[in-house]
Amino acid sequence: MTSFIYRRQLTIEWAHCDPAGIVFNPRFFEMFDTNAWKLFETALGVKQEALASTYGIIGIALVDARANFMKPAKFGDAIEIASRVKEFRRSSFDVEHLIAIDGALAVEGGETRVWAVRDEPDSDKIKTAAIPAEVIAKFG
Amino acid sequence: MTSFIYRRQLTIEWAHCDPAGIVFNPRFFEMFDTNAWKLFETALGVKQEALASTYGIIGIALVDARANFMKPAKFGDAIEIASRVKEFRRSSFDVEHLIAIDGALAVEGGETRVWAVRDEPDSDKIKTAAIPAEVIAKFG
Amino acid sequence: MTSFIYRRQLTIEWAHCDPAGIVFNPRFFEMFDTNAWKLFETALGVKQEALASTYGIIGIALVDARANFMKPAKFGDAIEIASRVKEFRRSSFDVEHLIAIDGALAVEGGETRVWAVRDEPDSDKIKTAAIPAEVIAKFG
Amino acid sequence: MTSFIYRRQLTIEWAHCDPAGIVFNPRFFEMFDTNAWKLFETALGVKQEALASTYGIIGIALVDARANFMKPAKFGDAIEIASRVKEFRRSSFDVEHLIAIDGALAVEGGETRVWAVRDEPDSDKIKTAAIPAEVIAKFG
Repeated sequence: MTSFIYRRQLTIEWAHCDPAGIVFNPRFFEMFDTNAWKLFETALGVKQEALASTYGIIGIALVDARANFMKPAKFGDAIEIASRVKEFRRSSFDVEHLIAIDGALAVEGGETRVWAVRDEPDSDKIKTAAIPAEVIAKFG
Repeated sequence: MTSFIYRRQLTIEWAHCDPAGIVFNPRFFEMFDTNAWKLFETALGVKQEALASTYGIIGIALVDARANFMKPAKFGDAIEIASRVKEFRRSSFDVEHLIAIDGALAVEGGETRVWAVRDEPDSDKIKTAAIPAEVIAKFG
Repeated sequence: MTSFIYRRQLTIEWAHCDPAGIVFNPRFFEMFDTNAWKLFETALGVKQEALASTYGIIGIALVDARANFMKPAKFGDAIEIASRVKEFRRSSFDVEHLIAIDGALAVEGGETRVWAVRDEPDSDKIKTAAIPAEVIAKFG
Repeated sequence: MTSFIYRRQLTIEWAHCDPAGIVFNPRFFEMFDTNAWKLFETALGVKQEALASTYGIIGIALVDARANFMKPAKFGDAIEIASRVKEFRRSSFDVEHLIAIDGALAVEGGETRVWAVRDEPDSDKIKTAAIPAEVIAKFG
């Protein structure tokens, strides 16, 4: 478990909610994605839109996502999303996203992502590459 | 033109962008909707999720929306959305949403909304009602 | 594993795709949700919008979602989403969603949902209830 | 007014609806966008994902969008979206999108788009170009 945590506070918008008046589940996966980008931006000190060019990658491609919904989030709720890398492996890593409402855990999310590079110049195909040690070091 | 302006700063997320790498237009209409709620919340001093119960309405229902896209917004761009009521009429009003990137106007949006109430108790139908003078007064 | 399968064909839209030109992951969870509703509609022969009132439930509430992304789906790709209930338990069940592109498995998704009822009349709280045997029987 | 009309039938999904139980307005703009692509695909007989490469353009970029919401669409409603080009100008054109529920007009939408090309090779900037006469001719 790395120690660097990126925390984002936000208020649940009408736009996020479904006819039951609670956050529609795909919106949580959007929040996870945004937090994954911001986690890397803040840990590495590189603007999120410059991550790919800075490290010569296509991106941090998602290969697996999951969430456990324990408590619904409603329109107007103030939430906090705390994200960190749980584990770095050679070319992949797991991100944990914990959403709290008033300090109580409401959603526990996880993503597995890979350090993705172009298979060959001008190719559409991607492959994974080893995550640089200096990248991993920045996460503590 | 009323004088109360609600301003929101946000960073364009990967989630907002399309294959052209710019904000997908429906996302701007989401931003407008969120700003309309926040504009009323801050002008009236009533939590957005309590607006309906406070004023005995169904909501501030949208009847018309429009936007002019002058300059694309890209992943990572810092934008500001400034929203205000352009005109209050008996039971409807126009909201203006101006999106700026680095101080330059990028999107000019507009919404027409109505003060909507239930037609009859337990009815699914809605009708418009006169906007209370004290509501209008709060917008300056 | 129940035998009833609901299959839906669709074409990947520009609206579904991100700056990498592939489907943005939350869109797959939207597709799963829509398929879950349609699976119940077709298995039970009850319009999706009438499921709640027909069975006296709040809905089939999501408590867990997950997906494994094996192959990206691109703008214009013709996909098929095949959904079925993997297992019914007393008050919860698992739904499997398999997305294929040209017959090749691209995304493997799963949801755990509960048969949710109102805790007490007029209460906001929900609790789970036993899934009626005749509901389960319809899935084969 | 050109004569070619692209019609798409769809059922309103839970995913499209907001806490008021009706379609959240940005979803209509998504539907318009998808119909604009399909309108060009069917009129021109060129797959939507091949439009850019076939005509040497960046795309049919949106510069203005608007909608008038006359009748709400609810979860489960069967709708039809009929789209056509209202007017072609030198490098821009207007698309009309009419959404009907049970044959009654519910939403009247409009888009203005431009025939967009890269300003210079490898440039990020776009400019408009004249719409080829053979493209216009295909719309009748």
